[in-house]
Amino acid sequence: MSRRQLRLNLFIYPGGHHEAAWRYRGSAPERLLDIDYYRDLAVRAEQVTFDGVFFADGPALADNVRYASRFRLEPLTWLSALATATSRIGLIATASTTYSEPYNLARLLASLDHISHGRAGWNIVTTGAPQAARNFGLDAHPVHAERYDRAREFLEVVTRLWDSWEDEALVADQASGLFADTDLIHPIEHTGRHLSVHGPLNLPRSPQGRPVYVQAGSSEDGRGFAARYAEAVFTAHQTLADGQDFYADLKKRVAAAGRDPDQVLILPGISPFIGSTEAEARALHDEFNELTQPEYSLAMLRRVLGLDLTQEQLDGPVPLELVEREGERGNGSRFHVILGIVEREQPTVRQLLHKLAGARGHRVVTGTPEQVADQIQEWFENGAADGFNVMPPWLTGGFDLFADHVVPILRRRGLFRTAYTGTTLRDHYGLPRPRSTFSPAGSQHDT
Amino acid sequence: MSRRQLRLNLFIYPGGHHEAAWRYRGSAPERLLDIDYYRDLAVRAEQVTFDGVFFADGPALADNVRYASRFRLEPLTWLSALATATSRIGLIATASTTYSEPYNLARLLASLDHISHGRAGWNIVTTGAPQAARNFGLDAHPVHAERYDRAREFLEVVTRLWDSWEDEALVADQASGLFADTDLIHPIEHTGRHLSVHGPLNLPRSPQGRPVYVQAGSSEDGRGFAARYAEAVFTAHQTLADGQDFYADLKKRVAAAGRDPDQVLILPGISPFIGSTEAEARALHDEFNELTQPEYSLAMLRRVLGLDLTQEQLDGPVPLELVEREGERGNGSRFHVILGIVEREQPTVRQLLHKLAGARGHRVVTGTPEQVADQIQEWFENGAADGFNVMPPWLTGGFDLFADHVVPILRRRGLFRTAYTGTTLRDHYGLPRPRSTFSPAGSQHDT
Repeated sequence: MSRRQLRLNLFIYPGGHHEAAWRYRGSAPERLLDIDYYRDLAVRAEQVTFDGVFFADGPALADNVRYASRFRLEPLTWLSALATATSRIGLIATASTTYSEPYNLARLLASLDHISHGRAGWNIVTTGAPQAARNFGLDAHPVHAERYDRAREFLEVVTRLWDSWEDEALVADQASGLFADTDLIHPIEHTGRHLSVHGPLNLPRSPQGRPVYVQAGSSEDGRGFAARYAEAVFTAHQTLADGQDFYADLKKRVAAAGRDPDQVLILPGISPFIGSTEAEARALHDEFNELTQPEYSLAMLRRVLGLDLTQEQLDGPVPLELVEREGERGNGSRFHVILGIVEREQPTVRQLLHKLAGARGHRVVTGTPEQVADQIQEWFENGAADGFNVMPPWLTGGFDLFADHVVPILRRRGLFRTAYTGTTLRDHYGLPRPRSTFSPAGSQHDT
Repeated sequence: MSRRQLRLNLFIYPGGHHEAAWRYRGSAPERLLDIDYYRDLAVRAEQVTFDGVFFADGPALADNVRYASRFRLEPLTWLSALATATSRIGLIATASTTYSEPYNLARLLASLDHISHGRAGWNIVTTGAPQAARNFGLDAHPVHAERYDRAREFLEVVTRLWDSWEDEALVADQASGLFADTDLIHPIEHTGRHLSVHGPLNLPRSPQGRPVYVQAGSSEDGRGFAARYAEAVFTAHQTLADGQDFYADLKKRVAAAGRDPDQVLILPGISPFIGSTEAEARALHDEFNELTQPEYSLAMLRRVLGLDLTQEQLDGPVPLELVEREGERGNGSRFHVILGIVEREQPTVRQLLHKLAGARGHRVVTGTPEQVADQIQEWFENGAADGFNVMPPWLTGGFDLFADHVVPILRRRGLFRTAYTGTTLRDHYGLPRPRSTFSPAGSQHDT
């Protein structure tokens, strides 16, 4: 099967991605802290040969937990627990370069890679939520550019830590008594602007060498960072044209950074409402929207995007000039998604809230399994995506519909694997295993 | 079964506790990074109704990895992985108050408690290894008193974080749309000498309320800390008299701190060499000692205890005056264990090295299953122990001998459970579930 293949992750959010998911009759809010619920999801995703499961994260409590399941599972522990319940699927954890110690985070991710026999991915974030700062002794959240400056240094440090045991360092020769060849274990001796870390790591190199580097920021700094470090990019676009623009821009930046654009996968989010007819799918989407709570939706818009519509009539129009004005001091790429919706669709406030309720700005598609598969194929074959983060509106049923009805279509069309051909996340994504930067061959990759 | 019962943990160290464990013909050094090896151990320990499995930790690479399996598994991830492979056994993770961010560590441990349905324990350490400092941007390792000062503040912070969601805060009422009662979720607003943490935690309260608090330092500061916070104390003693002294002293301090001495379990380490005859057990111990490497053993003694015997003859006597002189500037309680051995036994250097090779100063016992059981019973019934950390010389075989041959004897004598009667580590240890300090009832405990 040599045809280019879709990469598909299941993006797991407690309850599902629609903000009212937990209120839907098909959901099970009493199970949202039960590891077995997430194990069922990961096992199901592995049965349909998904590339990975993915957990978002942020080291602070969202303000809106009164209305929605916005607590946070700690990704490294939850994914470690899922590692022993699965054997092939990738396990992608979000973790912050702003609010982690690099030595501790390097250990956690290397451990996940060992535990999973090479299935760890790291979604590198600088943390957008300003309330995180005060959980870590800071008076203020560092500004965007400062966070990215630390992130770049952080990446250099953890990469060297993961490389600090060369692959051949662990000898374990019972006869001679040589457990590890300490000539192949290196301190990293890093001293920089933000960090000072001596090393080496206290664990042998992991099966993938390093976790797969994933990145999800689409700002100018974010794109520059992705071009330099990312092996997969999670992104949010509402229209094919926007997706194509981003895809072309990022692949160009990757090439300009001297890297192979085929080894940076671009994976937009997609949140599918699936019905056996288009009308049924729309009715399902409407049912979710009726479960939303405007106080919550308005607060989310204000807190996440800085856009305050609380003074507007719910069934009146969204004032375009207000959105444009707020956008000038708003926070980046996700704001432009909103602006695009308002310009294109001229929605009422309620319609805009419903639009965003689905997946926080990610694309919501509504239709039959064939129609959803068509949308996926269109983006995949027209330069907008190398695959998708599948964001079911609710769990577990919303994923079952995709697994049972959309995956078979994608497979029949030859777009998605019918069996795993490798064992690691790098295998699934078609990415090489990096050689240690300490290895004398000096080559970046050994495959 | 109302008779007082032993508490038994399996202390897991890669390869086993004897420093030459990995060289023993019965060990499997090629499996030391394989989660399935640890899963087999945890499952076996659960089959014989052990209270818990326990992982030590330190955030730096030991210098001696050339000769011994002294890398570190990251405990939170490894125990999370074991959580889904087991259903009853406690999971006790070591983590440092000196080199962790309290918000991050509180999340990791609360997550482990959720994932395991209430089986998490936290072995609270301040980290003894000075080389950790330079992995965290510090010029020097904080001194002992300073580390304990931060540890006390750290405990106040994480306790409040674990309590920050009262037990009833998660409502998830689909009909009304109330997901969480935010009146029952509290910021902690801590500002202290070492830490500033606003809270609340971003995860509902865990099944045990908080992980079981375990502590392992036996210094003056360590005992004071244990009296105030610990629910279980791991300790190292060579003789019954030393064990009794420590036990009596600590229980007295607990009472003086206004706590119930029965709710602080004292669990010394014990490393058993088991044979079907005493001679066979001794021969087994000798076989291990012959696999030791004096360069390693001497370096351990120098680095861990500050005692330099590299200039002495291996088969000459350990000079008592040298040990006494070094002890004055040495590091605390473990040093006194060594001094006691030298005074009592007047060993040669090689004999002392062999003595310490077993379990780094913990008690090594050699004998038949009956003799090992006798030793356990003697300490348990004579005011030296509430149970033990079982430290097999090698894994997995060294634990199989204990599980197959010693456990049945302890059960026949009525000293150890034949089935679990509860589901959480607090249940196994006979400890109450703490009420949130934010709960209006104001009581410390709700059971």
